[in-house]
Amino acid sequence: MLRVAICAPSRAITYDIADRVKALAADYPAINLDFHAQCFETQGHFAGSDAVRLAALVECANDESYGAVWAARGGYGAARVVEDALTQFGPSAATKIYLAYSDGGTLLAGLYKRGIGQVVHAPMPSDIGRAGGEEAVGRTLEYLSGAANGLESSLDARPVAAFNLMTLAMLCGTSLMPDLAGHVVLVEEVAEHLYAVDRLFFHVMPHLKGIAGLRLGRVNDVPINDIDFAQSAEQIARHWCARNSIPFLGLADIGHDVANKIVPFGLAGRGVAQ
Amino acid sequence: MLRVAICAPSRAITYDIADRVKALAADYPAINLDFHAQCFETQGHFAGSDAVRLAALVECANDESYGAVWAARGGYGAARVVEDALTQFGPSAATKIYLAYSDGGTLLAGLYKRGIGQVVHAPMPSDIGRAGGEEAVGRTLEYLSGAANGLESSLDARPVAAFNLMTLAMLCGTSLMPDLAGHVVLVEEVAEHLYAVDRLFFHVMPHLKGIAGLRLGRVNDVPINDIDFAQSAEQIARHWCARNSIPFLGLADIGHDVANKIVPFGLAGRGVAQ
Repeated sequence: MLRVAICAPSRAITYDIADRVKALAADYPAINLDFHAQCFETQGHFAGSDAVRLAALVECANDESYGAVWAARGGYGAARVVEDALTQFGPSAATKIYLAYSDGGTLLAGLYKRGIGQVVHAPMPSDIGRAGGEEAVGRTLEYLSGAANGLESSLDARPVAAFNLMTLAMLCGTSLMPDLAGHVVLVEEVAEHLYAVDRLFFHVMPHLKGIAGLRLGRVNDVPINDIDFAQSAEQIARHWCARNSIPFLGLADIGHDVANKIVPFGLAGRGVAQ
Repeated sequence: MLRVAICAPSRAITYDIADRVKALAADYPAINLDFHAQCFETQGHFAGSDAVRLAALVECANDESYGAVWAARGGYGAARVVEDALTQFGPSAATKIYLAYSDGGTLLAGLYKRGIGQVVHAPMPSDIGRAGGEEAVGRTLEYLSGAANGLESSLDARPVAAFNLMTLAMLCGTSLMPDLAGHVVLVEEVAEHLYAVDRLFFHVMPHLKGIAGLRLGRVNDVPINDIDFAQSAEQIARHWCARNSIPFLGLADIGHDVANKIVPFGLAGRGVAQ
């Protein structure tokens, strides 16, 4: 039995979301989900104050009875607590699987930089709120049950990392930014104008020198601008890869949607497919 | 007579905007405005292709008959051309005044990093499109005519720089990012959620180590989010300054509005007030 602690370093979820995820998880006998009460707290934008979110994250990571820590939701907030939380992670934290994406990539980055645990880009409990969201959440539950069928299909012999592009951009140059040299880096974006996506690529590329290459996930829910950008997200990614002599390796099956696949950082964590 | 070349490294302006600025400039006999034809070109989002915008910028900077180069408008695009443009700037470029703000801060940053010319955060021709925009544009015209009454009032014996926060964030770690150690850094923002402002401060602060302090300009047109951030922009700025041991020096009279004041980078360029 893998016990999974769920906390919310960024925004809160509702009890209804947790109930629906627990109902779905009843079909996965190899795992047991434990939603920390902090998931449902709110203080302004966040799932509780910085101190409350930090304490819950540290508690989950350091509790020996848990084998995995799963971020309940993204939405911004992890950047306010992860640096301090990591300094409080003990030996038990190093043995766990950590799952998140979107703003949760801030936690994944900091853990990966420090070599703590197995870091996994994966759907989160909040995804159950999407139309057909059981597919997304079920993918993470299957992964935690030992299945490898939810892995992003391009994973090869090279180490890999997956990020929301804005989240990655905000990590560049901070204490949480891992060394991604030699990695295939997958990026996705949501709800950003294409000019902003272009701007983000301008920014992140100098921080990705030495990576093995870049793959572009889905760029979803692009807002309507007063002027059409007239270039696709793929054209944008190819432009900035070429300009920075970084191989563009094609598309990636990740994004803010129910098809979002699982990407264990590095080379480990690929389950039975390994 | 100061001859001012106007080009558009980012987005285009209309002939109507140029006509209104020229009409206003008729009251300033010490300066002559010359709108480059490139200002009115469009290719998708941009004021012409990257090659066209780059060529116009280089042409204006290298033309000995001009004493100043003024960006017509922001809106994103300078990041695609400034790095290459600067490599083509000749001796004449070093003697000029460069004026812009918002996305034009990308040009200002690159120039300032290389010590080329006098770099000035100032209203742009496109500001005439705002209600009461003559006040903003007139402020730049007065500055170019030798007046110092449009300077931001907090300027003191320390060198200074002023940026749109998102623009500055995208510059961090790139070849265009100047060394701002010892500087008072003024930042402003527009049309970003407060959670995004918080995220931007998380990101830029490690890149501002050693600055003399930070001043917060206006954070305008914050979109309505599905949840209130519950902290003001000033609270956000104070939080991240405190966390990074950077002095918060108070507010700054800059922003995407007609009251936006003039900030010559460094210590020079303060006109008769100096």
